[in-house]
Amino acid sequence: MTVVASLALPLREDLRGRVPYGAPQLAQAIQLNVNENPHPPPPELVAALAGACAEAAAVLHRYPDREALALRTDLATYLHRATGVALGADRVWAANGSNEVLQQLLLAFGGPGRTALGFTPSYSMHPEIAGTTSTGWVGVPRGPGFAVDTALAVAAVRAHRPDVVFLTSPNNPTGTPTRLDVVDALAAEVRGVLVVDEAYAEFTDAPSAVTLLARHPHLVVSRTMSKAFALAGARVGYLAAAPEVVDALRLVRLPYHLSALTQTAARTALAHVDALLATVADICTQRDRLVREITALGLQVVPTAANFLLFGPFADPPAAWQALLDRGVLVRDVSDGPQLAGWLRVCAGTEAECTAFLSALADVLTEDR
Amino acid sequence: MTVVASLALPLREDLRGRVPYGAPQLAQAIQLNVNENPHPPPPELVAALAGACAEAAAVLHRYPDREALALRTDLATYLHRATGVALGADRVWAANGSNEVLQQLLLAFGGPGRTALGFTPSYSMHPEIAGTTSTGWVGVPRGPGFAVDTALAVAAVRAHRPDVVFLTSPNNPTGTPTRLDVVDALAAEVRGVLVVDEAYAEFTDAPSAVTLLARHPHLVVSRTMSKAFALAGARVGYLAAAPEVVDALRLVRLPYHLSALTQTAARTALAHVDALLATVADICTQRDRLVREITALGLQVVPTAANFLLFGPFADPPAAWQALLDRGVLVRDVSDGPQLAGWLRVCAGTEAECTAFLSALADVLTEDR
Repeated sequence: MTVVASLALPLREDLRGRVPYGAPQLAQAIQLNVNENPHPPPPELVAALAGACAEAAAVLHRYPDREALALRTDLATYLHRATGVALGADRVWAANGSNEVLQQLLLAFGGPGRTALGFTPSYSMHPEIAGTTSTGWVGVPRGPGFAVDTALAVAAVRAHRPDVVFLTSPNNPTGTPTRLDVVDALAAEVRGVLVVDEAYAEFTDAPSAVTLLARHPHLVVSRTMSKAFALAGARVGYLAAAPEVVDALRLVRLPYHLSALTQTAARTALAHVDALLATVADICTQRDRLVREITALGLQVVPTAANFLLFGPFADPPAAWQALLDRGVLVRDVSDGPQLAGWLRVCAGTEAECTAFLSALADVLTEDR
Repeated sequence: MTVVASLALPLREDLRGRVPYGAPQLAQAIQLNVNENPHPPPPELVAALAGACAEAAAVLHRYPDREALALRTDLATYLHRATGVALGADRVWAANGSNEVLQQLLLAFGGPGRTALGFTPSYSMHPEIAGTTSTGWVGVPRGPGFAVDTALAVAAVRAHRPDVVFLTSPNNPTGTPTRLDVVDALAAEVRGVLVVDEAYAEFTDAPSAVTLLARHPHLVVSRTMSKAFALAGARVGYLAAAPEVVDALRLVRLPYHLSALTQTAARTALAHVDALLATVADICTQRDRLVREITALGLQVVPTAANFLLFGPFADPPAAWQALLDRGVLVRDVSDGPQLAGWLRVCAGTEAECTAFLSALADVLTEDR
């Protein structure tokens, strides 16, 4: 990772010394470090994607639909199925990964002189993108078990009056779910925009914050096709919100931000929703197995509602991370910072990948004694 | 076009009343309004794209290469061929369209309290993206014939000391080329970053500003695959610059900003560079024909080095635009604002499309008399 510290170039002062986001990409290892779905798209979807891309390629000299209306309609249909809430396409927006959704939200509702607030530890890109968009950042520590306590959260919102508030359910990197009554109470308090990041929603049975949209016009629910949909490589994130929020995002989105290939790939995947989401049950089975077997090895696991979990504590997490990598398994070292000192994060892979991870972990722990 | 003026939502004050970028997308008309390449990708490229996308689809559950190294290497190879300048991949960067390249540049080198400067009329997204990124904007009017005069440009840079300067060659929407000695003189004067936007470079024989990179570490040359490469639908822009500029962009880019499909589509197109660029000669022939025949119809045409041109003057450009659209031809009304009062813009289509446009134009002019 390059530290861009002392350029002769006129880099923004507040970026100097910053380090680019960078989970290692090591193709030779078993990759359990970035919460991907371990199951490749099924052959029938691969074939359908090839056909859809060929169709899009034939007119690739033309700009794509700037409004991505067909995709947004399909996403609304999926959200109806997933949450029971019927939404028009005017309440759905899509972008290149939920990161771009979040960036557009911060460009529209954050910016210089404004503040975003989140409950830490949480998704590292929330403060990162706040920084990039010159939005101030307030990190409010989570309570015991990494839960967001309503009273503390409301007090924090009253104290800081943030323009944008990030909640996560389940939370990354801890896996902690957020109860809907907490979202509801916070939505009633937030004067700015409350963004509930549900990137991992499909791995839990808890109801979605989409069910609260009708009650709170300032509520935004962001989601992604990178995880349960096994489409991390296609970069498709989306949100549901009031039509006025979508209108606001049009003011800051780059024209034609979603390529024709992205739009058609996402639509094709949504047409294969049953096959794709069939992997969720298997992933949850493996996650529950990891919880059991890591615990049996004498370590602690933070209760999780996502496709990943925190395990530890380790006296020297970077050394444990390296020892696992030496045995061919790549997990995430999240121990940087006081709140997660001692913890590593692993996501549920295939049965074989989880077996390899558990064996490597047992080996590392034995060697440690 | 929705004006987002009076939201109950906490929209950024400086965005209120702003109108989203929005050239009309009317599939039923002959589309000569957004400077696209009128030639679809050839069948052998469509087939290759389908194969490449199928290969990428098989591992679409994994995040794409965050560094897009193979694509950047291929782009460096192309730039070597196009400009004669050998570049390492560490001097090349790519993003979702040159719009995202420009946004990343403004996020890294612009931002609150900083200023970008451009020579107007020019690409409307330069001030738009400056606004989105809270970068101040100074528009310096071009001289006679829409040229950038060195003395005036240097004086403007000395007066405003901008952090980012945009030059364009050829310029959009006027088609005006910028001589290399103007770029050179301005690069010597600019303390910030000088961005030369060469989106339409392939339509001119003039040497690229890439040839000046070795002399000016603050120089950035941005390009796109949307125009000559006939890949507007794939959203691929790129730049060549010092490695330190690329390092700076890593601080503000969203992780995994380029999808696996985008990376593989761009690489496949670059492998078919000869077939794609073979369309450039035909487009230039049609452009030159448009210049001749529009002039023969008694109108003026601004000298152009791009795949489009300004024609006029019209007493009522919106009416002329509508009259052309009523005859099935969509051109661009750029007459909004004093500098381009009276002008419309048209891009070179296929021979048949240009014939249809010229016939519609003759019809409109006859009716007007």
